[in-house]
Amino acid sequence: MNRLSRDPVALLEAAREGQRIALARLMSLVERGGDEARLVGAQTYSQVGGAYTVGMTGAPGSGKSSLTAALASVVRSEDERLAILAIDPSSPFTGGAILGDRVRMQEHVTDDGIYIRSMATRGHLGGLSLATPQAIRVLDALGWPWVLVETVGVGQVEVDIAAAADTTIVVVNPGWGDAVQANKAGLMEVADIFVINKADRKGVDETRRDIQQMLELSSLGDWEPPILMTVATDQIGVDELWEKVGEHREYLEKCGELEARRTRRVDAELTEIVNRSLEKKVIATMDRPETAELKEKLMRGEIDPYAAAAQLIDMAEGLN
Amino acid sequence: MNRLSRDPVALLEAAREGQRIALARLMSLVERGGDEARLVGAQTYSQVGGAYTVGMTGAPGSGKSSLTAALASVVRSEDERLAILAIDPSSPFTGGAILGDRVRMQEHVTDDGIYIRSMATRGHLGGLSLATPQAIRVLDALGWPWVLVETVGVGQVEVDIAAAADTTIVVVNPGWGDAVQANKAGLMEVADIFVINKADRKGVDETRRDIQQMLELSSLGDWEPPILMTVATDQIGVDELWEKVGEHREYLEKCGELEARRTRRVDAELTEIVNRSLEKKVIATMDRPETAELKEKLMRGEIDPYAAAAQLIDMAEGLN
Repeated sequence: MNRLSRDPVALLEAAREGQRIALARLMSLVERGGDEARLVGAQTYSQVGGAYTVGMTGAPGSGKSSLTAALASVVRSEDERLAILAIDPSSPFTGGAILGDRVRMQEHVTDDGIYIRSMATRGHLGGLSLATPQAIRVLDALGWPWVLVETVGVGQVEVDIAAAADTTIVVVNPGWGDAVQANKAGLMEVADIFVINKADRKGVDETRRDIQQMLELSSLGDWEPPILMTVATDQIGVDELWEKVGEHREYLEKCGELEARRTRRVDAELTEIVNRSLEKKVIATMDRPETAELKEKLMRGEIDPYAAAAQLIDMAEGLN
Repeated sequence: MNRLSRDPVALLEAAREGQRIALARLMSLVERGGDEARLVGAQTYSQVGGAYTVGMTGAPGSGKSSLTAALASVVRSEDERLAILAIDPSSPFTGGAILGDRVRMQEHVTDDGIYIRSMATRGHLGGLSLATPQAIRVLDALGWPWVLVETVGVGQVEVDIAAAADTTIVVVNPGWGDAVQANKAGLMEVADIFVINKADRKGVDETRRDIQQMLELSSLGDWEPPILMTVATDQIGVDELWEKVGEHREYLEKCGELEARRTRRVDAELTEIVNRSLEKKVIATMDRPETAELKEKLMRGEIDPYAAAAQLIDMAEGLN
């Protein structure tokens, strides 16, 4: 393949041979959405082998990138391979922008056992909730055994994306407010593992106590989320974190919860695809001349809004 | 009517006779949503007479309630009648909670020319974007000539609700940060009239300048949003505010923009009803045994997600 094809089949083949540029192209297609993303999906869905996904979320500046780099080192020292997806819903830019800041990530960029990719919205808000599972599926189909999904922001979209992983790590820092903020943002509910990063700073004990108190107030299953301390920049506590991820994986596999989580994930993805398809149909319907008539009737008080909506739905369902 | 009926027709009749409790019941039905809200809608859509709606939004503590009370006094002094809807998407409570705080509103509660009602979500988030236009329609059908919609928070939902009015007032306070925050929250774009309330405090000139600068940066139509100064608690500047509302109304009516705005509103309401109806269908589909089969196939890699979604849509469209 001299000239890089846009054909998903050829791209997947090239990516399987280790061509990083082919993988990058595939990810761009997925990120962009639309028909080409669908083609990629159609080529990969039957080849998924069960990559294990780890989600990481937390406030900006909590050190998620450093922690990711540190985890990458641990994973490599165990001769495992790790793909990293950095999801940034708030940024319209992708590729270099975020990764350029990741000084500590530099050591991994030439390593065949590590793949790093950042994904952004490219304008279509919410598109990431469709693109992320598709991107994971591509990596899975290409044989990556571990996929770490790191979300950059702390909005609902980011939390949802990180929570859609098999194991979700929530990163906070020492300082009372941070744990409380995490609680407010709905992070407490999604955490399988808590990490207090930058644990060389003061306030660790209070933060730990705060998290513990909040955990006591919430209804937990059999897995009690551990609270770990790390200093990612000095590689402190990172081995233990990776160990805990393994323990949580074992727990999920044993009790059947892994299957349940993945079913829920498929559920959410399907619902999202269906809702978006229907939304498209509605938008297409809204532009039709019959709709304009209907709206005029509504304005003149000749039809009630629910009856008008029912007619619109009939119209939308007639579209294909 | 001794015992208060739940029948919208009877309730509307009683409300027309001036029974406030019947109106309150109608508003509760609308707020609760579902079939009874639809019935109310079906009874009122043909009776709308063109109530003029004024939206008011701004950060918590900016004095929206005081300004509303002060406006109510002006409106009454001109022998006009005013209905006030206080929309609080963040609160699961309704009725007394918010209005209890409204000390200055007390003078109006026994006045037949003023109606005050607060509406909250009752758990179904986003429900207010359906309930608000319906509530306005009820007040309109009952002959209220002016409806003031005040939103309590500053999220996207609140801004959207206030912006759906004929004339939208954005309230800020002296202090540079406030105007900037307003800009961030998307308030600048929706403002037809700016009010710097608590204008007896220092920083008025800076705030005015900030707003002016931000206005210069944005693309405006023929109406240049005026920036007014009020001290609502002392009734200062409130006559001028009400005058400006009248001027804006005249402007909208003359240039045909009022019709255009109301068409857009009907548009948004219809889209919302359609989307919600479809959402309901999808949720109903998700619980079916055929869907469970489909999901298992998807998990086993026997079908691709988009093909599965297409099958689900066919199923949903078969439901009624």
